[in-house]
Amino acid sequence: MKKVLIIGAGRSATSLIDYMLDQADKHDWHITVADMSLELAQEKVEGRARGTAVSFNALDEAERKPHLANADFVVSMLPARFHIHVAKDCLKLGKNLATASYVSPELKELDQEVKDKGLIFLNEIGLDPGIDHMSAMQFINRIREKGGKIHAFYSYAGGLVAPESDNNPWHYKFSWNPRNVVLAGQGVAKYLYEGRYRHVPYNQLFSGSDLVYVPNMGWYDAYPNRTSLKYRGSYGLDDIPTIMRGTLRYKGFCKAWDLLVQLGLTDDSYKMEYSDDLTYSQWLRSHLPHNLERFSNANMRAQMASLFFLNMADDALDKLKWLGLFSDEKIPIDNASPAQVLQELLERKWNLEPDDKDMILMQHEIEYTLGDQKKRHISTLVNYGDNAVDTAMARLVGLPLAIGVKHILLGNISSKGVVIPIKPDVYEPVMTELAEYGVSFSEMEMDLNSFDEYFQR
Amino acid sequence: MKKVLIIGAGRSATSLIDYMLDQADKHDWHITVADMSLELAQEKVEGRARGTAVSFNALDEAERKPHLANADFVVSMLPARFHIHVAKDCLKLGKNLATASYVSPELKELDQEVKDKGLIFLNEIGLDPGIDHMSAMQFINRIREKGGKIHAFYSYAGGLVAPESDNNPWHYKFSWNPRNVVLAGQGVAKYLYEGRYRHVPYNQLFSGSDLVYVPNMGWYDAYPNRTSLKYRGSYGLDDIPTIMRGTLRYKGFCKAWDLLVQLGLTDDSYKMEYSDDLTYSQWLRSHLPHNLERFSNANMRAQMASLFFLNMADDALDKLKWLGLFSDEKIPIDNASPAQVLQELLERKWNLEPDDKDMILMQHEIEYTLGDQKKRHISTLVNYGDNAVDTAMARLVGLPLAIGVKHILLGNISSKGVVIPIKPDVYEPVMTELAEYGVSFSEMEMDLNSFDEYFQR
Repeated sequence: MKKVLIIGAGRSATSLIDYMLDQADKHDWHITVADMSLELAQEKVEGRARGTAVSFNALDEAERKPHLANADFVVSMLPARFHIHVAKDCLKLGKNLATASYVSPELKELDQEVKDKGLIFLNEIGLDPGIDHMSAMQFINRIREKGGKIHAFYSYAGGLVAPESDNNPWHYKFSWNPRNVVLAGQGVAKYLYEGRYRHVPYNQLFSGSDLVYVPNMGWYDAYPNRTSLKYRGSYGLDDIPTIMRGTLRYKGFCKAWDLLVQLGLTDDSYKMEYSDDLTYSQWLRSHLPHNLERFSNANMRAQMASLFFLNMADDALDKLKWLGLFSDEKIPIDNASPAQVLQELLERKWNLEPDDKDMILMQHEIEYTLGDQKKRHISTLVNYGDNAVDTAMARLVGLPLAIGVKHILLGNISSKGVVIPIKPDVYEPVMTELAEYGVSFSEMEMDLNSFDEYFQR
Repeated sequence: MKKVLIIGAGRSATSLIDYMLDQADKHDWHITVADMSLELAQEKVEGRARGTAVSFNALDEAERKPHLANADFVVSMLPARFHIHVAKDCLKLGKNLATASYVSPELKELDQEVKDKGLIFLNEIGLDPGIDHMSAMQFINRIREKGGKIHAFYSYAGGLVAPESDNNPWHYKFSWNPRNVVLAGQGVAKYLYEGRYRHVPYNQLFSGSDLVYVPNMGWYDAYPNRTSLKYRGSYGLDDIPTIMRGTLRYKGFCKAWDLLVQLGLTDDSYKMEYSDDLTYSQWLRSHLPHNLERFSNANMRAQMASLFFLNMADDALDKLKWLGLFSDEKIPIDNASPAQVLQELLERKWNLEPDDKDMILMQHEIEYTLGDQKKRHISTLVNYGDNAVDTAMARLVGLPLAIGVKHILLGNISSKGVVIPIKPDVYEPVMTELAEYGVSFSEMEMDLNSFDEYFQR
């Protein structure tokens, strides 16, 4: 019997735990689910015979180590910064490890030692990172195998609300960490376009968003992610002249979000010691140039329209108004940064209601030359959640991780060391099984030059 | 005989050292000038009988302490972050101390102990901070003494190039730390306007600059400083509805600088590992939205004009061209942040030539009510340097400090503790003597309502 220890029983561990327990009989596994909260771990195990719920402090080495020692395989669903402690224990104890998080530099340093011990520490096998890597490598390798030469790679993903649950003018609800959504894009986005570096500063990121067509779905806003360049190396695309990864939002989101950015409402670098003395409209007004004071008797909408050269009827202004930023409601938190004030407000406004469904969109666009033909490949994943607990986001993080763990346990994966799922021995079985769970990409191929006409923006 | 130890013999210590040595005979002082470089210290002492040049490592407690123990008074011209070490020694050894730097929180904590020992640690007695505090308090207190009630306080300062040495389209040369100029304004500028908080994010700071009239000089750009709010407390203006401190630049500077900010060229948060592979125009282009690529055969000027809705003839574009940002010249430094690339370029372009003169401008505008009259007070300081070594900047930092030190030595200042020069026992004698050196404010008083007509923007 193989003993698997899953550390962390939060939302994104649900589908992982369910999968492992569902297949435990068949493969003779025992699954121990550990969490700080015993109740949460018990809830996830649901009393199933092959499962045990335990509680310990995973950050305390003395508490943690006996549990690791007793397992044959460890899955860490802890916040990413804590994986390194678990990884070092696993190395000492000779246990395989899997996580859905980015490989940190410290973890990467363990690579040779992990190899020397004949172990595998599999990471970045959730949704993004995870399904993005696996699907991209699958399509890239197929194009190469038929002799195609790739000259552009675009990859987009978004965690959105499903159309049927979309009832606000932003067309957005949180299915992911709200703080990360509020701070998204701060810093610089770097990518390559036709052989030239692109540096997109934060204040141009949302105003400069592009439109991307998702077949059968329509047009979405897309803005570039911070870290497109590093994927050249991971994906074996070192000489590619164009590579860009981006985030998808419903059309119109970026234009309105840009207003918040331009005003400084996403700034997390200073506190307002007086924030709970202010109403939202006073707070908004504090970010307007003071020469607009001559409009001080006009309403906030007129001031915003004036500042940003918008028509009074602009729907970006509807979005701000819907948030309550023009209202006399008091800000409920004190000594808060602008980003904290905004996050507190958005958590109330963009909350997934119990029956709301979320939606994951992911799309790769690969331009390549085959003989004398210029082609474009488009592959698209659309996946919906069931409700606010069983989200597509949580399922698509947990499921590929679970499948990856299974194939390691079954001895189907030969890779050793600190790895990410960019080799066929990992991505082929995982992608194949994901399709059985309805997680698969639809694909299109077309003549490159026909595209612009077909998808005219 | 009183023994004074001056630690640090850099440019801004020159006028301090000269003043102290010039008056040493009269007051029976001996002046020891210490620097890491013995040569520099000797150069400043110039072999004068009342002076001694020494060299020691001021950051090494063991090397530093005997020199402090041997002095009656210590002046620290070290970088601001090192004052605290000198201050703690002075406290232990029972020595008075003076600096031209802002009081750090750690230094402020020593206040009671310094008082208990009957000592004075006088800080912020250079130019800005320094002359700004002393002149502001002088004018504020005069208005109060005649019964005026102050409702608005504006204070502006700029370290600029003198008109006679101004020969570039930016009308700016460095008379101060270039890095601080490149990074100026990053963060948020907070001030109060008519009782309401103002939060000006960096990306609105230069585009939203205002025009300020300096009598007999003309119109200057002004943008708000980060820290206006803290002066309410220091200046006893707690209930004032409007308080703003700002930085002055020649007219048109802010509009062009804003282009650099909007493009992200002042960003210091990431490195370009490939910076020396790029020309300036390639670098500039990397910050333009990629939908401008259709203009890729057009020149950089046309691309910039298109992006920022500028006329092709706009002088902000002349400024960028003059810097060489449209050129095929290679960037000479590798692995640099945008801010570092820009600083390296500007240090070559905005260098003070040996015979160039700099200029200090400082202006306070105080609005107040006297009986039923609404009045405006304007006081202005204009001061010119002699050349690139004897700058107005260095002189106006060192001279008030020297005069303050003299009056402490002569027993004319009764304040104790960690202080800044906002009380008459310090600012009155210092301002009086500064006037003898040609450093004085011209003053105007006018009816508040006549101002707008007179100085119509």
